[in-house]
Amino acid sequence: MILDNINKENDIKNIDPKDYKELAKEIRQFIVNNVNNTGGHLASNLGAVELTMALHICADLPKDKIIFDVGHQCYTHKILTGRKDSFSTLRTYGGLSGFPKVCESDCDVFDTGHSSTSISLALGLAKAREIKNEDYKVFAVIGDGALSGGMAYEGLNNALRLKSNLVIVINDNQMSISKNVGGMSNYLARIRTNKTYTGLKSSVENALDKLPGGQKMVKNIRKTKDIVKRVFVPGMLFEDMGLTYIGPINGHNVSEMVDVFERVSKVNEPVIVHVCTKKGKGFKPAEKNPSKFHGIQAGATDRVKDKNKEARKKDYSAVFGDKIEELCKKDDSIIAITAAMPDGTGLGKMAKDMPDRVLDVGIAEEHAVTTAAGLAKGGMKPVVAIYSTFLQRAYDQIISDVCLQKLPVIIGVDRSGLVGADGETHQGIYDIPYLSSIPGLTIMAPADARELEFMIEKAFELGSPVAIKYPRGEAYYPEADTLPIEYGKSVIVENDYKTKDRKENVSKKLDLIDKADAVIFAVGNMVRTALKVKKILEEKGLNLTVVNVRFIKPMDTNFICEASEKYKHIFTLEEGITEGGFGEMVAGCLADKNALVHIMGLPCEFIEHGSVCELREKYGLTPEIIAEKIIKQISVS
Amino acid sequence: MILDNINKENDIKNIDPKDYKELAKEIRQFIVNNVNNTGGHLASNLGAVELTMALHICADLPKDKIIFDVGHQCYTHKILTGRKDSFSTLRTYGGLSGFPKVCESDCDVFDTGHSSTSISLALGLAKAREIKNEDYKVFAVIGDGALSGGMAYEGLNNALRLKSNLVIVINDNQMSISKNVGGMSNYLARIRTNKTYTGLKSSVENALDKLPGGQKMVKNIRKTKDIVKRVFVPGMLFEDMGLTYIGPINGHNVSEMVDVFERVSKVNEPVIVHVCTKKGKGFKPAEKNPSKFHGIQAGATDRVKDKNKEARKKDYSAVFGDKIEELCKKDDSIIAITAAMPDGTGLGKMAKDMPDRVLDVGIAEEHAVTTAAGLAKGGMKPVVAIYSTFLQRAYDQIISDVCLQKLPVIIGVDRSGLVGADGETHQGIYDIPYLSSIPGLTIMAPADARELEFMIEKAFELGSPVAIKYPRGEAYYPEADTLPIEYGKSVIVENDYKTKDRKENVSKKLDLIDKADAVIFAVGNMVRTALKVKKILEEKGLNLTVVNVRFIKPMDTNFICEASEKYKHIFTLEEGITEGGFGEMVAGCLADKNALVHIMGLPCEFIEHGSVCELREKYGLTPEIIAEKIIKQISVS
Repeated sequence: MILDNINKENDIKNIDPKDYKELAKEIRQFIVNNVNNTGGHLASNLGAVELTMALHICADLPKDKIIFDVGHQCYTHKILTGRKDSFSTLRTYGGLSGFPKVCESDCDVFDTGHSSTSISLALGLAKAREIKNEDYKVFAVIGDGALSGGMAYEGLNNALRLKSNLVIVINDNQMSISKNVGGMSNYLARIRTNKTYTGLKSSVENALDKLPGGQKMVKNIRKTKDIVKRVFVPGMLFEDMGLTYIGPINGHNVSEMVDVFERVSKVNEPVIVHVCTKKGKGFKPAEKNPSKFHGIQAGATDRVKDKNKEARKKDYSAVFGDKIEELCKKDDSIIAITAAMPDGTGLGKMAKDMPDRVLDVGIAEEHAVTTAAGLAKGGMKPVVAIYSTFLQRAYDQIISDVCLQKLPVIIGVDRSGLVGADGETHQGIYDIPYLSSIPGLTIMAPADARELEFMIEKAFELGSPVAIKYPRGEAYYPEADTLPIEYGKSVIVENDYKTKDRKENVSKKLDLIDKADAVIFAVGNMVRTALKVKKILEEKGLNLTVVNVRFIKPMDTNFICEASEKYKHIFTLEEGITEGGFGEMVAGCLADKNALVHIMGLPCEFIEHGSVCELREKYGLTPEIIAEKIIKQISVS
Repeated sequence: MILDNINKENDIKNIDPKDYKELAKEIRQFIVNNVNNTGGHLASNLGAVELTMALHICADLPKDKIIFDVGHQCYTHKILTGRKDSFSTLRTYGGLSGFPKVCESDCDVFDTGHSSTSISLALGLAKAREIKNEDYKVFAVIGDGALSGGMAYEGLNNALRLKSNLVIVINDNQMSISKNVGGMSNYLARIRTNKTYTGLKSSVENALDKLPGGQKMVKNIRKTKDIVKRVFVPGMLFEDMGLTYIGPINGHNVSEMVDVFERVSKVNEPVIVHVCTKKGKGFKPAEKNPSKFHGIQAGATDRVKDKNKEARKKDYSAVFGDKIEELCKKDDSIIAITAAMPDGTGLGKMAKDMPDRVLDVGIAEEHAVTTAAGLAKGGMKPVVAIYSTFLQRAYDQIISDVCLQKLPVIIGVDRSGLVGADGETHQGIYDIPYLSSIPGLTIMAPADARELEFMIEKAFELGSPVAIKYPRGEAYYPEADTLPIEYGKSVIVENDYKTKDRKENVSKKLDLIDKADAVIFAVGNMVRTALKVKKILEEKGLNLTVVNVRFIKPMDTNFICEASEKYKHIFTLEEGITEGGFGEMVAGCLADKNALVHIMGLPCEFIEHGSVCELREKYGLTPEIIAEKIIKQISVS
């Protein structure tokens, strides 16, 4: 195996160019085998094998810097920088991260995970190099999908002022996570398919061939373009923004890319290199359906081979998407919006069934939320489904464009809480802190799938801004009935997930909970955890009242105050950072009362990757640990 | 006066076109006179007079919708829609807002205030119209400055999928708030100044003239462009993104604009109309120095006339900027970044003195923060100064690009707290909630100008992510000495603003405060308010210990716990929303202790415009009201 000769960064430089093709093949097989075991991002990594090889051949690592936008396409980079042997631990607790991680290798420049940041990061780095008069190369690798994010444009808009080299590689696979959308995407496609492409390409190549590297080359290319402007000129959009463009180049031909990268990295200005790749390259099922193989679970590639199409269990995203579709069929005003994640957010089926009612705006969360505000103003009932972590991008838009206007936009806060294997950059643990201080926003968290469905219905009734946050993972449908959602009201739940009639309880002046030793207010998916805690405590002769919070905002303050009069100890439980979280809101509510509030949740730390179970164990959110804490508190008092 | 004939929307339609010029002149004089009395945005409004008139002549209000990006250029729009007579109340408490406000008039479509949202809003509205099969026109008016924001690009990138009309007017005055920067700005400038401009312009006009409105016209223009592509073609960048471009057009010729707007609004797709205007038009000092006359205080235009250049009192932004410049001169690694606000953030002087050390990235807060992360990675010490309200745009970037990487980026959170006359969209009242849950971020709030200077020095020492939040308005330098900033430590302050030696106090086990009846933890500018409260209480024989919090994060939890043992009542005071604010953090810290915490701050509401004094009065943050609350609490216990 040629791959055996690659054990650390720069080893690839010793590989004979005639073996590049074979090496790429081996790397692909290595990735498919490993990702089949661990789960992970497949299609994007298979597409970027040769591109990454070419960059590594040109770069001197770790001195030179390669910044991968988003970062999920970094597997080849990891394989080429001494992390081949730990690949079996990919995305597992304590193992290799699925994203670049500075703590893993000094060949990783930034811990990335969110989209469209690479140009801004690279510009900063290159500017620092310029000021400090240092000498290293900087490469930014950005997908055409990430180019639909406004930040990427902000970077491009500022790039022309750099007076030193920066190579911005557009890795154009015509996809974001789903099929890419928008004017920029169409423009890149036009470059790829333009009839004059071949002729022009060879003229660019001639320019590259005849001229030794450096400024002169670029100027000559520019001149060439001035002459040939009578035809469609690839990259003129970038040139119009003051940036030099080279391309399109075959992203699966290592030697061609090496040639171009070496030349363009000698120019004293930013250069855009447009590289065309095929997402999923080399693995037929992924080539055919790259969206499906964007991120996969362990064993997924086997399943394809075996044609064993085991139905995946329904997750909360699917519950959300299916419910929206159901309501959409009855109400012409409903429209769903996704930021490049129709499948991830459960809207994929609806996008197929009712394509006019699902708006995929590309990786553009800010636009997604604000255009939803526009739709609402026009009399529609828009639903935006975005992962909790990516919704951070639209924080200001939720405040200024949705809530200030009191517009009936429903925000599906998907993957709220711990998300597991994607790690630090993807945990949905900030949403209560960042959403709860927004005036006029209702925030709900369902304890189970049926409650999610009820809450969606409730949200449409309200006609005002609503966020519903729900977790990643398998949806749970309780056996017992679910009480109707009453605005701003929490409910008491019992074992076997039966929901006690709240009104009855209140009318009995909390007689039932009189008998309990403590009360716990649990948010969303933590309700089921709290019920397990209740069971553990029962076995020890203690009685715990479990409250399903349902409404984070408005808080059920009356109920919380009542409870504080009944109980000496109030516990709160949430799968999120406690600073600014629900527990602090309860503490704030009871601040001027004699009540002891014990807040349980995640510490104010970046939470690493691992399974959700492992992370809950580490951060003290398992039923056992929680039960212990409660017993300790009750017994000391 | 022609203006006398305009008393409500659509009245302008009855004005004889030969009087447009005179009307524009009258409107300008009206704006100058009024803004001289009330303060407000001057230069941008003077530039947009004819453009707004033309839109009003074409539009049927309120049926048709005109969306002004940012919105501070809406004065002519307000004058033309029945708000002329209330203009003397502009930006005053209870009076006319300086921004579009739906509650003022049904001719205002959205309450805007932040930049680069108009295309997204307009697209949403137009899409809703399309789906609902309704019939009204939508115009989005966006400045070239706002085009540097990524959201505007996200909007443009999604525009081509609209199958009905939308007119996007680029109001190109070559300025954002300061001089505009970046590739897009250069591109627009190139269109304005291109030698072939005149010839091409007449060819576009011919196309407009010869063809009756509708799709055909646009197609023909496109065809024309295909033919003339051998020369520089205005707007090809937009055409490359799939959008029809018309321009450039003289933005001070009403009839020309009316003609174009009427024709393009018949086309079944989005059309970009590039209109060239002069910021400050018609008022010489503003034409000459539009940045200075972007937003002015009352009497400013008089001062210019009188050549009475009274020095404005130094504000906190200037304290910040001057301190950064001072440190910059000693340390080659320091670099300051602004998002189109060199003057607003106090960096204007430094930008002149050391132009290489101030990076103005345009209206692009996300890029500003992330490129700062890149600079820090490259060994620089970047300082980003952004208004609290605009920093909301970069929330995700602070988490993912700065704090996750532990990069030493200093964020100057300018205009934190109530900002006054700009109202809802500009209040800096969410920053504690959104910043305090970010792992690894230090958050400081100075009580005065000297403390701000000390904190900046401290921030550079730390070498980790730091946010320093400081208010709008005149800087206060205390007479007494300022104690050195000790990391994570609060200090007790006394009357006359002397700072007690904290260590001494602690070693005396808070002997001093033993004698006090209550303690108040005050954040930032609220420290001086708390000292006034202390004085009021003293007159009533009560003793209040005032703590200058200094560090919101990490909180001085030991001190807070100690205090909770000494005092029955703990008060907190902040000029921000209490939900998720500092008071709740204190309540969280003391949640499981027997302590009574009384949280004072702003309610979770959108806070309207008015003077800061008036708003404090309304929301209970004056010394008198606070003293009353404290007395009430102490006496009931």
